[in-house]
Amino acid sequence: MNYAIVFRLLGYILMIEGALLLLPAVTSLIYAEWAVMGVFLLTAAISGALGFALQAIKPRSKVFYMREGFAATALSWITISIMGAVPFVLTGCIPNPVDAMFETVSGFTTTGASILPGVEGLPNGILFWRSFTHWIGGMGVLVFLLSLLPLTGGSHVNLMKAESPGPQVDKLVPKVQSTAKILYGIYFALTVVELCFLLAGGMNVFDSLLTAFGTAGTGGFGFKNDSFASFSPYIQWVVTVFMILFGVNFNAYFLLLLRRFRRAASSEEVRAYFAIILAAVAVITVNIRSLYGTFGEALRHAAFQVGSIITTTGFSSCDFDLWPTLAKEVLVLLMFVGACAGSTGGGIKVSRFLLLGKTLGKELKQALHPQVVAPVRMDGKLVNHETIRTTNVFLAAYIFIFAASFMLVSLDGFDMVTNFTSVAATLNNIGPGLNQVGPMMNFGAYSNFAKLVLIFDMLAGRLEIFPMLVLFLPDAWRRF
Amino acid sequence: MNYAIVFRLLGYILMIEGALLLLPAVTSLIYAEWAVMGVFLLTAAISGALGFALQAIKPRSKVFYMREGFAATALSWITISIMGAVPFVLTGCIPNPVDAMFETVSGFTTTGASILPGVEGLPNGILFWRSFTHWIGGMGVLVFLLSLLPLTGGSHVNLMKAESPGPQVDKLVPKVQSTAKILYGIYFALTVVELCFLLAGGMNVFDSLLTAFGTAGTGGFGFKNDSFASFSPYIQWVVTVFMILFGVNFNAYFLLLLRRFRRAASSEEVRAYFAIILAAVAVITVNIRSLYGTFGEALRHAAFQVGSIITTTGFSSCDFDLWPTLAKEVLVLLMFVGACAGSTGGGIKVSRFLLLGKTLGKELKQALHPQVVAPVRMDGKLVNHETIRTTNVFLAAYIFIFAASFMLVSLDGFDMVTNFTSVAATLNNIGPGLNQVGPMMNFGAYSNFAKLVLIFDMLAGRLEIFPMLVLFLPDAWRRF
Repeated sequence: MNYAIVFRLLGYILMIEGALLLLPAVTSLIYAEWAVMGVFLLTAAISGALGFALQAIKPRSKVFYMREGFAATALSWITISIMGAVPFVLTGCIPNPVDAMFETVSGFTTTGASILPGVEGLPNGILFWRSFTHWIGGMGVLVFLLSLLPLTGGSHVNLMKAESPGPQVDKLVPKVQSTAKILYGIYFALTVVELCFLLAGGMNVFDSLLTAFGTAGTGGFGFKNDSFASFSPYIQWVVTVFMILFGVNFNAYFLLLLRRFRRAASSEEVRAYFAIILAAVAVITVNIRSLYGTFGEALRHAAFQVGSIITTTGFSSCDFDLWPTLAKEVLVLLMFVGACAGSTGGGIKVSRFLLLGKTLGKELKQALHPQVVAPVRMDGKLVNHETIRTTNVFLAAYIFIFAASFMLVSLDGFDMVTNFTSVAATLNNIGPGLNQVGPMMNFGAYSNFAKLVLIFDMLAGRLEIFPMLVLFLPDAWRRF
Repeated sequence: MNYAIVFRLLGYILMIEGALLLLPAVTSLIYAEWAVMGVFLLTAAISGALGFALQAIKPRSKVFYMREGFAATALSWITISIMGAVPFVLTGCIPNPVDAMFETVSGFTTTGASILPGVEGLPNGILFWRSFTHWIGGMGVLVFLLSLLPLTGGSHVNLMKAESPGPQVDKLVPKVQSTAKILYGIYFALTVVELCFLLAGGMNVFDSLLTAFGTAGTGGFGFKNDSFASFSPYIQWVVTVFMILFGVNFNAYFLLLLRRFRRAASSEEVRAYFAIILAAVAVITVNIRSLYGTFGEALRHAAFQVGSIITTTGFSSCDFDLWPTLAKEVLVLLMFVGACAGSTGGGIKVSRFLLLGKTLGKELKQALHPQVVAPVRMDGKLVNHETIRTTNVFLAAYIFIFAASFMLVSLDGFDMVTNFTSVAATLNNIGPGLNQVGPMMNFGAYSNFAKLVLIFDMLAGRLEIFPMLVLFLPDAWRRF
C-alpha cells in the first residue's frame, strides 16, 4: 500500500468536510443555537486542520492501483463518518459514540436508519447536518473531490470505480474530472428543481431543504417523527416523483442534456426500473385498496412506498408494517433490487439483475443449442466477460455478508423478521425494515455490537462491498 | 426434441415403478389390508402396462443431447409422481389430487413436506409407499435405470448430469453404467447397516424400514405425528449419525472402498461439511442449553436438528420452532447450505458455496495484485471455467425462482416467516419450515395454487432447476 498517497487523499477529504461543516454552523446561527454553532465551528476547525496536516504529506511514489483506490475509498468514508459524528456527541444529542457513528454512517451512506426514537426536539443545526450528510454521500465525496482536483496517475478511475455504484463505470466524457463535474451539476440542478416544487407546495424553506437533501441522496432521515405521513398529498407526490427520478441512472440525464432522447429512452436498465416500479405499485395498490378510503389514497401510499424502497430512500407516508403480507413481501423484494447503477440509490441494482437474468437466458439457450454461441448484450452492446464475472462475485460476496450479519445481529434475541429486515435495510442502504425496525420504530434497541455490524453493512452497501472487504486482507496493508 | 427416445425412456421408468409398487402391495398383504393391496396391484398393473406400451416406441434417430437429457429427466419425475399419487387418491387417504401429488412429489424429491395433519391412522401399505418414495428418489430413478440398461449415445452422461446433484458429475469409473451400479450398491449397503442399528435398538421391523428409507433418501416423512420426538435417545443418535452419513459425497465412500483413505479424507467438500456441522451444533447447543435438563439432551437435539436440516432430511426430535431466534436462524441458513454434492441430500450444496467462496477470494487477491494469476482449485485440481460459470448461473436461477415462489405463495395471506420458510423448505427439499409450516404443523392449509408452486419448487430443487426450466422454453418442444 502506498500509505502516503492515501493519507494525502484523506487530508483533502477532511478539508472538504471542514468546509461543509460550516453550513450547519450557519444554520445554527440563523436559529440562534449558539452552543450548537460552537460545536460545528470547532469540528470544522479540527477537520480542516487535521486535513491540512495530512494533505501536506509528500508521497515518494505516485503509484495508485486498484488496491489504493479501494483502501482510500473505504478509509475516506470511515474518516468522514467519525468526524461527522463528533457534533452529535458534543452537543449531547446522541451521547453514545457508537450511536452517533451509526447515525452518521447512516447519513453518509444514504441509508437513513436512525437510532433516535424522536427527532422533533433536536436543534435545527443538528437536523440540517443529519440530512445534509445524505446529500454529500449521495453522489459521493470522492467524486466531489475528483471534480475539484486534477489528480495524477491511475487515481481518478480507481477512485471512481470504488465509489460509484453499479457493475460498470461509465465515463460520460473522456476526462474523469469533467465526468465528476457533470454528475455533480445534474445532481445539484435536480435538487434545486425539487426544492422549488416543495416551496411551491407551501413547505417552509428549512423543511424543503431537508426533504430535498434526503430525496436527492436517496437517504431517508425524516425530520418529523412520522416521516412524511402528516404532509399534504401534493408534497407526498412531489417526493415520490423525485425519489424515483434520483434512482435513475444519471447517464440518462446526461444523454437528455445532449438531446439524444432516443438513446436515453432506450436504456434497458431505465426501462426495467420503471417497469418494476409500475408492476409493484399496481400489485400493492390492489392489495392495500381496502385499507384506505379512496383508490387515489391507496395509489399514493403504494407509489410513495415503492419509490421510497426501490430507490432505497426510506421515507414513509404511512406505517407499511401494517399492510398485508403480499404488499410487505413486494417491498422486501424491492429492498434487494435497488435503484439503477449510476444513481444515488443503493441495493443490488437493476442492471445487476438484468445481467444475471440475461446470463441465465443465455445458458438455457446454449443447453438447447450447444452449437450456437449466444453472447450477452446490454443496450445493444456486448457485455464483456469481466463485468459478468464481477457481477457474479459481487452476488456471492453479498450473500456471505448478508448471512454473517444476519447471524451476528440475532445474538440480541429479536425476532427473525426484525433481524432479516434490519440487515436488508442497512446493507441495501434503505433505512427502515419491519417489526422492531419498522417505519415507526428505530434501531436504538440493538446492542452496540449489533450496531457495529450494521455500520459495517451500511458502508459495505454504499461502497458495494469490495473496498470494505479489502480492509480485512492483511496483504492490503503491506508497505512496499 | 427427439420425442420418441424420451417416450421410450418414460416407458422404462413406468415399468420400473410398476415393479416397485409391488412392495407396498406385499406390505398390505402382510397387514391384511385387502383394499389397499388391491389399489397398489391395480396401480402397478396400469404403470407396467403403460410403460410397456411406451417403451415399444421405436425411435428413428438415436440423437440424445443435453436437451433430451433435461426434458427426459423432468418428465420422468413428473410422470412417476403422477402415477405414485394414484394410490393415495384411490385409497381415499388423500382424496384431493393436488394434495396427493404434493405428497408424492414431496416423497420422490426427498423433501418430506406433508399436507397430512396426522399419519398414525394411515394403512401400513400407504405408510410404506410414502417412505419408500424417499428411498427411490434419494439416489434417483434414472440412475437406477442407468445401472440396469445399456443405453446408447450421449444418453448416459446427459441423464446422469440432469439427475445428479452438484456442480460437477464425477464418474467414479469410466463406464456410466458401472458408476450407477456402484452408487446404488453403496446406497443399498448403507441403508442395510442403518436398518441393523435400528433393529438393535429395539425398533420393530416396519418402523426400522421406514426410518431407514427416510434417512437414506434424506427424505423426512415421519410415521409418527411427532416425527422422532418419542423415540429413545439411542434411536435419535443412530438417525442423527446416518442422516449425516447420507449427506456425504458418495465419492468419498467409493474411495474408502478402494482403500484410498487419504484421498477420501482430504476432500475439501467433505471437510467443510463436517466443519459446518460441528460449528452449528456447538452454537445451537449453547443457545438452547437452558431449555433442556442436561447438556447431553441439548447436544442431542442440536445434533439431530442440524443433521436433519443440513442434509435436508427434515425429521425432528423436538419442536425447534420454540427455540431462540439465533438457533432458528442457524437452521434457516443450513437449509440453504444443504449437503454435499453427489449425496442424496438437497439444498444449494456445500461444494457450490466452496466454489463461490474461492472465486471471491481469488477476485480479492487479483484486486490487490493485478499482475498475479490466481486460478481456483478444488481438492488440488484446477476448477474449469465452465463449472464456475454454471455455479453462478445456478445461483442466479435459484434466486429468481425463490423470489417468484415467495411472492406467489404469499397470495394465501400467511405471515412472512411461513412463506419464506415454506419456499426454503421445498426448494431445498427439506420438509418442515417455521410457524404455519413448522415441524409440528403441515402444508395442508395452503391453497391448491400455492401447493402447485411448491410442487414445482420441490422438483426444481431435486433436479437442480435447469431440467424444470427447460420445460418452459417453447424452443425445447420443437420437433426436428
